[in-house]
Amino acid sequence: MDRRAFNAALAAASVLGLVAPTAARAQGAPARPRIGMLVYSDMILLDLAGPLTAFNIMQADIQLIARSSQAVMTDVGLPVTPTANFETTAKDLDVLFVPGGLKGTIAAMKDTQTVDFVREQGRAARYVTSVCTGSLLLGAAGLLKGYQATSHWYVRDLLAHMGAVVRKDRVVEDRNRLTAGGVTAGIDLALTIAERVAGDELARRMQLLIEYDPRPPFDSGSPEHAGLKITEAVLARRSDLIREAETAAKAAGASMNL
Amino acid sequence: MDRRAFNAALAAASVLGLVAPTAARAQGAPARPRIGMLVYSDMILLDLAGPLTAFNIMQADIQLIARSSQAVMTDVGLPVTPTANFETTAKDLDVLFVPGGLKGTIAAMKDTQTVDFVREQGRAARYVTSVCTGSLLLGAAGLLKGYQATSHWYVRDLLAHMGAVVRKDRVVEDRNRLTAGGVTAGIDLALTIAERVAGDELARRMQLLIEYDPRPPFDSGSPEHAGLKITEAVLARRSDLIREAETAAKAAGASMNL
Repeated sequence: MDRRAFNAALAAASVLGLVAPTAARAQGAPARPRIGMLVYSDMILLDLAGPLTAFNIMQADIQLIARSSQAVMTDVGLPVTPTANFETTAKDLDVLFVPGGLKGTIAAMKDTQTVDFVREQGRAARYVTSVCTGSLLLGAAGLLKGYQATSHWYVRDLLAHMGAVVRKDRVVEDRNRLTAGGVTAGIDLALTIAERVAGDELARRMQLLIEYDPRPPFDSGSPEHAGLKITEAVLARRSDLIREAETAAKAAGASMNL
Repeated sequence: MDRRAFNAALAAASVLGLVAPTAARAQGAPARPRIGMLVYSDMILLDLAGPLTAFNIMQADIQLIARSSQAVMTDVGLPVTPTANFETTAKDLDVLFVPGGLKGTIAAMKDTQTVDFVREQGRAARYVTSVCTGSLLLGAAGLLKGYQATSHWYVRDLLAHMGAVVRKDRVVEDRNRLTAGGVTAGIDLALTIAERVAGDELARRMQLLIEYDPRPPFDSGSPEHAGLKITEAVLARRSDLIREAETAAKAAGASMNL
C-alpha cells in the first residue's frame, strides 16, 4: 500500500470510528479518498445513486464531474448538478467512476473532449471503475485494452471491439479496473470498491447499513434466467440503440488500430 | 380487478409493448398508473431511486410530493425538486410511496401537516408502500394499525408502538400495505409493486432491464449475518436518532390510544 492508499484508508476508517481519532491525527490530517464520478445527460440515476450512497458513507471527497457546470438530465427526469468540470477536476483521483445509460454513453463515446478526459483521468487514477454501459466509455478511451471487463448484458460483447476480454460476472476486477454489469450491479461494485479503498470491516458495515440482503421476487435478472421471450422483448425495444453502440465501439476500436 | 386497476394495468402493459396498441386503444385512453412518491429533507436518495427507476420504466404518472415546492436535500447532497405539493396531489393514487432516512423520517413524524397528508392519501390509495424508515411515517399516520409490516432493521421493532405486527421479511405485504426493509430493499419492493400494478411479465422484463441479479461481495446484509461486532458498530453511531425515533413512535401510538 503506497502512502496515498494508506492515507485514504486511514481517513475512511477514522471517520467511521474504526480507528481512534488520535491514531488518525497522529498521521497528520490524512486525505479523504478522492472520488470523481462522471455525470452526463441521459445517464441512469440508479447507476449513480448506489455508488454515491456508498462513497458518501465512506465520507469520501466526492466530485460529480461534467463537461460543463450545467445540470445533466437523468433517465428518471431528475437533474444532477455537477460539482466539477473537466478543467477543475483533480488529476490524482483514488477512484474514477463512470455510470451508464445507453443513449448518453453513446453520445459520450462520440465526444472527443469526454473521451480525452476519461483517458487522462483513467491513466492517473488508483481505480478505474464503471457500472452498466459506462464500461463502453472506458473502452472508447482505450482503458480496457487487454483487460478483462464487463458491461450491461445487452452490450457486453461490444467491449471486444475495443480490445477488452469480455467476462460476464457481476463485477469484474482486473488489476485496477473494476467494471460491473447493468444498473443494480453498481451496489455490488460499490461494496467491492469500499473494501479495496477502506477495508473489509467498513465494507461490511456499509452493507448492513444499506441492508443489502437482496431477495428478488422473481428469477429474471439475467438473460439465462429470464428466458428467451422476456429477453427478446427487452432487446426489441433497444435494438436501434444497441446498433448505434456497436458502430461507436467499432469506430473507437478502429481509432486504436484494433 | 376494478376498472381503475384494469386501466392502470392495461396502460402499463401497453407502453411496454406487452399488448398491441390497438388493444389498448380499444379501451379508450387508459390512465397510466398514478404514483405519488413523498420526498422530504434528509431522505435517502437510494430509497427513492430504486422505485423511481421502476415506476419510470412502467411509464407511470409519477409525482414527487413535498410540503412545499422547494427542493429537498437528500443524504448524498443531491437535491430533489418536487413536482407536486400536499394541495396539488391527486386524491386517488394507485400507489402512495414513502422513502426513508431516519433523521428526516423523525422530523416528518412530528409534522402534523405531513402526517395528516399521508393519512388522507393512504386511506384512498390502492397501494400504500414504503421502504426503510418510511414505514415509521405510515405508522404515525395510523396506516399500519393491525397490519403486518417491516422497516429498516434498526427501527423495525418500533412499529409495534403504532399497532403494527412486526415482521422481518425483506418485503411484507398485508392486504394493500407493502413495506420493505432498509434502503436497497426498495428494489425488491418496486419489482413487487410492478407485478401487482402491471403484471408478472412486465415485472420480469424490468428485473432483466435493471439486471437485478445481485451478488453481494460479503454476507453482511442483516444483523444475523453481519454478526455482533459489525452490528454494534453501526448501532453505536445511530443510537441518538434511534432513541428519538422511539420517542416519536410512542407519542404517535399514544395519540392513537395504543
